[in-house]
Amino acid sequence: MTIEARLASRPDVERRAAMPAGFRAAGLAAGIKASGRPDVALIVADRPVAAAAVFTPNAFAAAPVRLSRSNLAAGLPAGGGRFGTAAAVISTSGCANAATGAAGDADQVKVGSIVAAEVGIAPSEVLHLSTGLIGTRLPLDRVAAGVNAVALALEASDAGLLAAAESLRTTDSVVKVATTTVELPGPGGSTVSARVSGIAKGVGMIHPRMATMLAVLLTDAAASSAALSAVLRPVAALTWDQLTVDGDTSTNDTVFLLASGASGAEAVEPGSPAEAALRSAVEAVARDLARQQAADGEGATTLLTCAVVGAEDDASARAVARAVVASSLVKAAVHGRDPNWGRIASAAGCARLTDAAVLEAAGLAPIEAAARAGSAARIDPERLRISIAGQRMFDGAAGGPQVFDQAAVRAAMDALEVVLELDLGLGEGVGEAFGCDLSETYVTENSEYTT
Amino acid sequence: MTIEARLASRPDVERRAAMPAGFRAAGLAAGIKASGRPDVALIVADRPVAAAAVFTPNAFAAAPVRLSRSNLAAGLPAGGGRFGTAAAVISTSGCANAATGAAGDADQVKVGSIVAAEVGIAPSEVLHLSTGLIGTRLPLDRVAAGVNAVALALEASDAGLLAAAESLRTTDSVVKVATTTVELPGPGGSTVSARVSGIAKGVGMIHPRMATMLAVLLTDAAASSAALSAVLRPVAALTWDQLTVDGDTSTNDTVFLLASGASGAEAVEPGSPAEAALRSAVEAVARDLARQQAADGEGATTLLTCAVVGAEDDASARAVARAVVASSLVKAAVHGRDPNWGRIASAAGCARLTDAAVLEAAGLAPIEAAARAGSAARIDPERLRISIAGQRMFDGAAGGPQVFDQAAVRAAMDALEVVLELDLGLGEGVGEAFGCDLSETYVTENSEYTT
Repeated sequence: MTIEARLASRPDVERRAAMPAGFRAAGLAAGIKASGRPDVALIVADRPVAAAAVFTPNAFAAAPVRLSRSNLAAGLPAGGGRFGTAAAVISTSGCANAATGAAGDADQVKVGSIVAAEVGIAPSEVLHLSTGLIGTRLPLDRVAAGVNAVALALEASDAGLLAAAESLRTTDSVVKVATTTVELPGPGGSTVSARVSGIAKGVGMIHPRMATMLAVLLTDAAASSAALSAVLRPVAALTWDQLTVDGDTSTNDTVFLLASGASGAEAVEPGSPAEAALRSAVEAVARDLARQQAADGEGATTLLTCAVVGAEDDASARAVARAVVASSLVKAAVHGRDPNWGRIASAAGCARLTDAAVLEAAGLAPIEAAARAGSAARIDPERLRISIAGQRMFDGAAGGPQVFDQAAVRAAMDALEVVLELDLGLGEGVGEAFGCDLSETYVTENSEYTT
Repeated sequence: MTIEARLASRPDVERRAAMPAGFRAAGLAAGIKASGRPDVALIVADRPVAAAAVFTPNAFAAAPVRLSRSNLAAGLPAGGGRFGTAAAVISTSGCANAATGAAGDADQVKVGSIVAAEVGIAPSEVLHLSTGLIGTRLPLDRVAAGVNAVALALEASDAGLLAAAESLRTTDSVVKVATTTVELPGPGGSTVSARVSGIAKGVGMIHPRMATMLAVLLTDAAASSAALSAVLRPVAALTWDQLTVDGDTSTNDTVFLLASGASGAEAVEPGSPAEAALRSAVEAVARDLARQQAADGEGATTLLTCAVVGAEDDASARAVARAVVASSLVKAAVHGRDPNWGRIASAAGCARLTDAAVLEAAGLAPIEAAARAGSAARIDPERLRISIAGQRMFDGAAGGPQVFDQAAVRAAMDALEVVLELDLGLGEGVGEAFGCDLSETYVTENSEYTT
């Protein structure tokens, strides 16, 4: 199937905060950020619900990541900390609570106790997110006051979800929200419309595995936590693991997916058409959030999409797409609206498959995933075709470099999205990756961050 | 052995062009570069000599890379294109002759024929280098005239080698040369002093495996080409594979090592003390050239060195060092002289070992290299220590973040070299990597390259 056909088969996504049934949310400013902007978000389910998570693989996983993992494992050891039961998600922005040692872990446990007491749930039912500067401690007094206040502000409304999304932001220039609906089997042969909504933040220290920074996906569909995890892991592999802003994988990356079941739909069973429909909806929301994150990358002036077709298989296609959007030289050229296709060829020529865990999440058998992890993606210069903004620049089968209208391409590249298309001419594999241009502003912003 | 001890055991290196016996060289401007700067270099051995090479793994390997590999294989099929016999190295700057298809290959063959005719050797004894814009054809008329002229200018002098080094440059702000001497067994129990010299260019599209751009190492020591290759491969793994400027691995990366034997030293045998001495000398020259390349990275204002001790093993130490100097966020922080150690911790926490070929070149057994390629380097946040410019910022065993004098560190970072030291506290493994800060100038230069 071509990328275009796959896109056509995806549910439509709206960029608005639409609260699924069974959840309440709020966000407000607790004074963690010096700017006085909103920095605490709380999402609460009406009752304990199924939850799945994908976390950063960074060895310096932050205190909220470690506590979320152990809370999920406490409720359901079989889930290995990747899925279980949850009733609330608390998020603090402005302080990552990473590399803060045992004291930072203790701080995060206190945050969980305060949330649990305010909401009337067990501390192990609280999931934690945080983002901001690495190596500084949470200002516990302010966080405690903020949690008290945000618990009183909870709303089962779109406005509540939007307020939570606002509070996730750090250097994001815009709020990141997306929603779609999916038709699922209901009681007695009926059909029920369930909602899938997501909120997320970017925008620096973003790279595949995980490339997320933070995202929370909520649905009023019903599923066991194991089934939710089976939906979430491949979605992350196809969307956030294909996103890069700057090549750095953070200490705090987390995606949560919570399912309230409040739509009245029947529980989604693994392998069923309903699971495929739910996965498609979750993927559509996740992909749209990833594109919003890429477009708002630090210093970015354009979303950079690389679409690869004709690869040996999908894993190779995704590897090539990722290598191209991760190249500093490609990104700088796109910033200058310079159709420098040679840099695209060079980046594609060095593409390597991702690690075994992500390959397996994306559908490869464990043995194949282990064998192919990190291997070079097959590419043949004599079959490759490269197009920028719809204009063919290189055709390996036709002697290589092609004559093209440079002024026209430069003009076409002066857009909010620049699409680089590669046809490897080797098979049926397709894949895409998302990034942004590299600007002087990225450097300036990141030279002046701590102080 | 600590890094300091290893450094102390390295031969001293001088940054000057010192021609080893048995070679002649020259460089001049042939008009390939619009700037009118020198762009053709020729190095000729007095007779066919042993040669070893390391090439880019990029699937888009440029025409000179492919032709060099096949010339080496033509003389000595057992060398697999990695070692054999050569009598000349021709280099053109300003045009990469990459992604130019069959026409580009034919151009490079013509260059070889012209060199062979001028010098009076076989075309298969010519090794080729080129660097510059990808996707453009060599201006053959100008190259031919340049080769005629440069062959007449050959000198067995330091000035000849310096002229060749000048002609390698593209965006390099300074010429890159290094030399050392090594005492080797001579005839009848005597000792002979042999010279090892290198010339190289940077300075963009530089990343491990290969991170070279171009380098030519010459020695008047004697060795078979297989023995030379056994010296060169681990040296490249320890030096150029630990160098990164911008995360892009080019289409043209090449290192050549040629041994004339003209010093009168006996041929170096694999496994002998003489081989160890020669390897140490070659490594010292290669390491110094790599540091020159890093310091002159596009837009760089400082050399960034990461020294890792206490790793589980050397391969893990090199992986962590490489991850730190490759991090855009670390590089941007160093540019701002900002002691943002949290970014160092985050980058170290995601370090992964390099691929099997480089691990094997660095000394791992093939099975171990295959098993560990791409795996996460072991790191324990509770044992890690991080220092910047000699000041301890993080000590995992002492609660994490440490109080330090920020103004003093910022002042110490305002230097031509910033050293980041990590002690992993896990074992005896040591390693280092070289990079540079990320500046607005890098972005500006690379947004405006083609046009």
